[in-house]
Amino acid sequence: MVDSEIGDTIGDACEIPNIEFVEFSKDLRFCLESGKRFGPIKIAYKTFGKLNANKSNAILIFPTLTATQQVATEHINGKEYMGWWSDIVGRGKAIDTDKFFVICADHFGGCYGSTGPGSINPDTGKPYGLKFPGFFISDMVRATVEFLKQIGISKLHSAIGASIGGILLLELVALEKDLVGNALVVVASHQVSAQCLALNHIARQAIMLDSKWSFGNYYGKDFPKQGLSIARQIGHISYLNQAILEEKFGRELLNRKFRKHISLGQQYQIESYLNHQGAKFCKRFDPNTYIYLSKAFDTFDLAREFGSIGNAFRGTKTRFSITSISSDQLFLPEDSRRLHDLLMAAGIDSSYHEIASPKGHDGVFLEAENLSQIVKHAIN
Amino acid sequence: MVDSEIGDTIGDACEIPNIEFVEFSKDLRFCLESGKRFGPIKIAYKTFGKLNANKSNAILIFPTLTATQQVATEHINGKEYMGWWSDIVGRGKAIDTDKFFVICADHFGGCYGSTGPGSINPDTGKPYGLKFPGFFISDMVRATVEFLKQIGISKLHSAIGASIGGILLLELVALEKDLVGNALVVVASHQVSAQCLALNHIARQAIMLDSKWSFGNYYGKDFPKQGLSIARQIGHISYLNQAILEEKFGRELLNRKFRKHISLGQQYQIESYLNHQGAKFCKRFDPNTYIYLSKAFDTFDLAREFGSIGNAFRGTKTRFSITSISSDQLFLPEDSRRLHDLLMAAGIDSSYHEIASPKGHDGVFLEAENLSQIVKHAIN
Repeated sequence: MVDSEIGDTIGDACEIPNIEFVEFSKDLRFCLESGKRFGPIKIAYKTFGKLNANKSNAILIFPTLTATQQVATEHINGKEYMGWWSDIVGRGKAIDTDKFFVICADHFGGCYGSTGPGSINPDTGKPYGLKFPGFFISDMVRATVEFLKQIGISKLHSAIGASIGGILLLELVALEKDLVGNALVVVASHQVSAQCLALNHIARQAIMLDSKWSFGNYYGKDFPKQGLSIARQIGHISYLNQAILEEKFGRELLNRKFRKHISLGQQYQIESYLNHQGAKFCKRFDPNTYIYLSKAFDTFDLAREFGSIGNAFRGTKTRFSITSISSDQLFLPEDSRRLHDLLMAAGIDSSYHEIASPKGHDGVFLEAENLSQIVKHAIN
Repeated sequence: MVDSEIGDTIGDACEIPNIEFVEFSKDLRFCLESGKRFGPIKIAYKTFGKLNANKSNAILIFPTLTATQQVATEHINGKEYMGWWSDIVGRGKAIDTDKFFVICADHFGGCYGSTGPGSINPDTGKPYGLKFPGFFISDMVRATVEFLKQIGISKLHSAIGASIGGILLLELVALEKDLVGNALVVVASHQVSAQCLALNHIARQAIMLDSKWSFGNYYGKDFPKQGLSIARQIGHISYLNQAILEEKFGRELLNRKFRKHISLGQQYQIESYLNHQGAKFCKRFDPNTYIYLSKAFDTFDLAREFGSIGNAFRGTKTRFSITSISSDQLFLPEDSRRLHDLLMAAGIDSSYHEIASPKGHDGVFLEAENLSQIVKHAIN
């Protein structure tokens, strides 16, 4: 079950069984990029498969922006818990849990059990809300490194991440050059585009415009559903693309009786789809986490942080596999390709794969067969 | 000055000199598409140049979604009033006001003096707000036709419209087959895309989420600026495109001192640009008008309305000129091209022009030289 700290409204729709927790030592006042010391920190994670004797089969999977630690599907007491990447991860899948020990942890700042804005601030006995410190991708990754240390993992056979997960992985290799054997970066690049910045900026404003947001103090009260729903809808437009929207929805009306006689009461299927996605999202995600994570996402810029891509990865033996989707409009293939070129130019082992697909950013979930081939090749 | 009915907050930033008004007869209870009868109706317009003796030099220009009737620049009492399409319309321009009599009217439902949601409802003595009836593109066009009749124009040498203006023009020719000589449809097509529907749906939600919106009853009170600003920002993303956003803003920070040390207080230039556009827009536009006009826009679908494009234009002698911009992501060139093909297939006179430009939908204002050539050719 999701940590009870998180509030009644969040997580209802994503019951996650058998979450494990690592709590960093209370003495460890975690030093954030901003210079602030912060703690205590708890990381909520799940594992799938078994760690072998010489600990050489661990694979870390970073979640996407809003995914849980339930990366693979499980059946427990006759109930099925669907994994968000179950086409790629599981028994007999490209990341085979019969062979590998798969670790997936909720983000630092997340809302599926790790310490985040919805957690109780021990100084006040109330949820942090906006008192939660601002953090960057590097902070999230340092929390990941500490978490791995605490569970006794000092070497990863492989690590994989898509979208913000891919960004976290790039930062991980840059900060810990001996940790990761194979780094599989999917639909991500070394910096976030201007369009991403724009969309996230608008999404955050929508959340904060909701009067129920109350400057982040909504825990235990009325939840800013409408603002979060708009934020999610903006996200969905960027996960799809124009051609897919046209093919999937076009100008179809929800209610066909309006076909002949136009009416302002009519609703288009695309509107209904967006409403549905927005409403569904409100059952499982914390608006404050959305604000903090999207801000961390926006500020990611590896070349700015390390001076250059070459500097970021100098000395690593990690083998990169960079995968893009041809129709992705959130992370353009040319940006992923450029990352690969920069890696090659810096003498880093890298391979580049572009999946030809019309499915846009969402292809990361929909092009499982193509992606499985790439993953298998990279980790075996 | 803008009609005082519109409220203090709106129109301050767009002082429009010498607006003329046509008030439809109070007996004329205008019949809307929905079946409702509505009135009184006033249309606020401006003219530029002189109507010749045989009334053969009138050109109607439809405004874009949020443009005023100030289409050309004027100098009055030493003050300059900038026109929104002054690169195309004015003395010596492609639409030469020394030669043509140019008419530009605020939309029915608009907020620059024509009857709209901010106008006083004579039944209550208060602004209509959401009591304003829902309307379609066809209603806006029938108001235009009546308006032209009232000012004594029964034949237009030409008419031109971009974006929603192009849509209004298509509907005008479909409803009045003998009215328009040359129809110049710019960055528009015979239906609105699924992506447009999605963006407008989100924009309307943002306006309505603003607690100051108060179900449309904000006139004379606190104005829902933040919601309208978000709506405008969503619009701006679609007016530009990914390549332009990258080139114009990239990941540049507003304050360069943050360059080295990342901080959550930093603001990206793209964020500042969007905030600025949003704030500017709030000084000149009515949120309720945005809701009504965007809904009319969304429902436009000429083939659904008339059975087919051929049906819509059967019997017209109007010569069409259809112009798209290669990088437009709001109205894709292929959709404009398809409109041209459908016109040709129906035996209608049409020419098609694609302006090769990276400037996106905004190219309609930025590609004045290319557009001027096309306009000159079509009207002369």
